[in-house]
Amino acid sequence: MKEPGFESVAIVGLGLMGGSVALALKRWGESVALTGIDNDATARAEAIKGGITASGDLHDIASADLIVLATPVRSIVEQLSVVGEYAKTGALILDLGSTKREIVAAMDSLPTRLNPVGGHPMCGKESASFRAADAELFKGAPFVLTPLPRTTPATLDKAQAFVRTLGAWPIDMNPERHDRIVAAVSHLPFAVAAALMILTTKMAQSDEMTFQLAAGGFRDSTRLAASDTRMMLDTLLTNHDNVSQLLRAFARELDMVADAIASGDESGLRAVLEGAARRRREMFR
Amino acid sequence: MKEPGFESVAIVGLGLMGGSVALALKRWGESVALTGIDNDATARAEAIKGGITASGDLHDIASADLIVLATPVRSIVEQLSVVGEYAKTGALILDLGSTKREIVAAMDSLPTRLNPVGGHPMCGKESASFRAADAELFKGAPFVLTPLPRTTPATLDKAQAFVRTLGAWPIDMNPERHDRIVAAVSHLPFAVAAALMILTTKMAQSDEMTFQLAAGGFRDSTRLAASDTRMMLDTLLTNHDNVSQLLRAFARELDMVADAIASGDESGLRAVLEGAARRRREMFR
Repeated sequence: MKEPGFESVAIVGLGLMGGSVALALKRWGESVALTGIDNDATARAEAIKGGITASGDLHDIASADLIVLATPVRSIVEQLSVVGEYAKTGALILDLGSTKREIVAAMDSLPTRLNPVGGHPMCGKESASFRAADAELFKGAPFVLTPLPRTTPATLDKAQAFVRTLGAWPIDMNPERHDRIVAAVSHLPFAVAAALMILTTKMAQSDEMTFQLAAGGFRDSTRLAASDTRMMLDTLLTNHDNVSQLLRAFARELDMVADAIASGDESGLRAVLEGAARRRREMFR
Repeated sequence: MKEPGFESVAIVGLGLMGGSVALALKRWGESVALTGIDNDATARAEAIKGGITASGDLHDIASADLIVLATPVRSIVEQLSVVGEYAKTGALILDLGSTKREIVAAMDSLPTRLNPVGGHPMCGKESASFRAADAELFKGAPFVLTPLPRTTPATLDKAQAFVRTLGAWPIDMNPERHDRIVAAVSHLPFAVAAALMILTTKMAQSDEMTFQLAAGGFRDSTRLAASDTRMMLDTLLTNHDNVSQLLRAFARELDMVADAIASGDESGLRAVLEGAARRRREMFR
């Protein structure tokens, strides 16, 4: 196991993501001075129970040479102004936010004495709290890093090494590309799961048997709908252009499937379903 | 464990569903004469390896006092004419098809000497073959029974007892209601999963990083897309009115979510997402 490469780390946000980073770093024991920061007393109490030193004061980032921002996207953007004022010269500033364009733009306004880089680990659970945190959460997961034009090769190297320390594999890309891709593979599936719950809940109001017949397929299809609303609101609203465009394209796709079913276009429908099944089986074996 | 209530059982279709019924019945040993029937040699070979007597001849239903039809819906409808001609007087005819209106209509044309009742166990996996079959598959699952007007209370009793033998709990309803509900909780989620694969595959063709960033949420959201195409084609086409109507309603729902996101309607969006999350958490804890 490699050293994490930092003597003092502050993690802002002790939910699933920040908590999992904290638990992963705890494995290095006293060689890393670790402070978790959260303005929610329950989150702090859970973290302390998990062996993490926790504070409610964002100014406690001041002594860290790595600051990990692990709150919802718009909170990260707000925190960056405090970070800019109080962070130690030379500190690496990494975030774990679900969208990258707004965060990276805000990071670009940080004083030049700080070294920011955007980040997004591609893993998660629908439980957003510290209780679900897991030192192994990042193991084997892709971890996107979105360097700024000002990010030096040395800073990017350190960030990549830190990502590998968590057991994840770093992928560099620009924030625009990241936001476009996650709109498709993460935000669209979330919005679709939420809409499935909305529509079937309406049906359940007129037929109480509706949810009685919901089985494993329905459970998996709607799992993402249980995601933390606050986090997802920030995510969708800071990626509104990509997500709304994709949702509309997806609605057109569904209208086409509906047409094929309604008109009994069996060969067209078979081609669509076979293509989807083949691709899905190739992806996840 | 109760006796299954039949001395001789024929199961037509040795895939996941029929195979699982066969394995469940095998637990009664020699007190039940069990024949599995499938026109596919591979399925028969797998069943024989699993200890099930297998035949390729549908006429081998002739000696059974329970005939379980466990193939895709339109095959069941076709098989019913052979069943009507060859089945033993007094035999109970139960199917496991995913939609019920067409099957029950075809069952109604069976000779009066036979006792048909429609059925649909609300469980499954994306693997459709005998290799995925499991004697415990039905345990704790709702199992819809759709009696015909001609179905006697004695026949329904026997069918319900058989369902309980499999570890499932019987729910009686009419075929119209069944087909309306499963359109929402099963066929819509399937079509949505398939469409998600289609749209993201298109994106992946222009950006090869797309699927690299797909994580657990995407995997769960698209799981149903890997379902057996033949089975799902039959299912969708024999429930085309309900499914196409719901797909279009769902597309409108998505357009509304897209509008809320595009216009930054935060409070409207929050209400929608919170409602979906709350309902989902109530359903599956």
